[in-house]
Amino acid sequence: MLPDPIQKFIKIFSALPGIGLRQATRLAFHLINSGKTNIDETTRAVSDLGRLKICSQCFFVHQNPASNGNLCDICANAGRRKDIIAIVERETDLISLERTKKFKGVYLIFGEISKAGVIESIQKLRLNHLKSLIKQSGKKAEEIILALNPTTYGDLNASIIAKELAPFADKISRLGRGIPTGGEIEFADDQTLGDALERRN
Amino acid sequence: MLPDPIQKFIKIFSALPGIGLRQATRLAFHLINSGKTNIDETTRAVSDLGRLKICSQCFFVHQNPASNGNLCDICANAGRRKDIIAIVERETDLISLERTKKFKGVYLIFGEISKAGVIESIQKLRLNHLKSLIKQSGKKAEEIILALNPTTYGDLNASIIAKELAPFADKISRLGRGIPTGGEIEFADDQTLGDALERRN
Repeated sequence: MLPDPIQKFIKIFSALPGIGLRQATRLAFHLINSGKTNIDETTRAVSDLGRLKICSQCFFVHQNPASNGNLCDICANAGRRKDIIAIVERETDLISLERTKKFKGVYLIFGEISKAGVIESIQKLRLNHLKSLIKQSGKKAEEIILALNPTTYGDLNASIIAKELAPFADKISRLGRGIPTGGEIEFADDQTLGDALERRN
Repeated sequence: MLPDPIQKFIKIFSALPGIGLRQATRLAFHLINSGKTNIDETTRAVSDLGRLKICSQCFFVHQNPASNGNLCDICANAGRRKDIIAIVERETDLISLERTKKFKGVYLIFGEISKAGVIESIQKLRLNHLKSLIKQSGKKAEEIILALNPTTYGDLNASIIAKELAPFADKISRLGRGIPTGGEIEFADDQTLGDALERRN
């Protein structure tokens, strides 16, 4: 009974991460009721995402001119150390790390790790891409930080990647693990507390 | 540090109901990584909502030609009783009621009720619109069903609307209230059980 444009909208939006059928339906009516100007603005917000480019080195997004070597702001920044590389799953992980202002190296966006415990083909391509960048530089990376989530699957993938990249870096590390700063020992779960003990420093 | 198109996208999408900053950010990167074809399809899904029309009688959406009197499928259906009107807050409430296939009247989309306990100006316009439709018909409505949510605010608004519309209908009713079908008395909350007792039939 719903008009085609609404059905289409619901189909497409309910397939997006974190949006179910019910929310997609509410979004459709919200937009319709918000009026033509709002719909136009929302349309433009989506279509403008198509104008973004992907960095040829780390695969993060950017808008720099092609004359820039198709590099993102981080990779194009001469002040960043190219021989210290953090491998992250998602762009949002990169953003979180950048927010700390404590990392002066560059990144590789690896893509979400699979729960099958295998590295997917696009991820293999990205690792090979990193290897050839390191080879081109003429020396091993000083450090590769595997900034994957500290979950079972993150750990599994980290050990696979560590083996793959071992010949290409002097040091391969992971992010520190333990009780969150500001947290309380009493409320830490057993696994976190155990890890904090083992990784004491 | 995020490119403009992403910041704009996040701003617009995080203002939509049920979408926060974090989810808007994830949606942006999800769309960017899903490729140009997907972005185009999503763009079209949003912009096509702008082609929908609003029914001149009940304010539901439709795509019928103007020659049809700008009526939605329900209002244009000669088989539906125009003298039995269900007042609903949202389009999604109308859809839920239609799904029961048990209502043969027409609707009025009232808009979300405010928590200030007052009827907003657009809602006043819609009530006046309903009054004039009833006047035009030459006789009182047989029944007006106030299908608002059974919440404190729904109850408050229902009593205000009931007073407003009393001269225009032989009967003003609300939806039945009590233990959900398939539910168990043991697990009903006190308020629901109390209402079920009071409204026994």
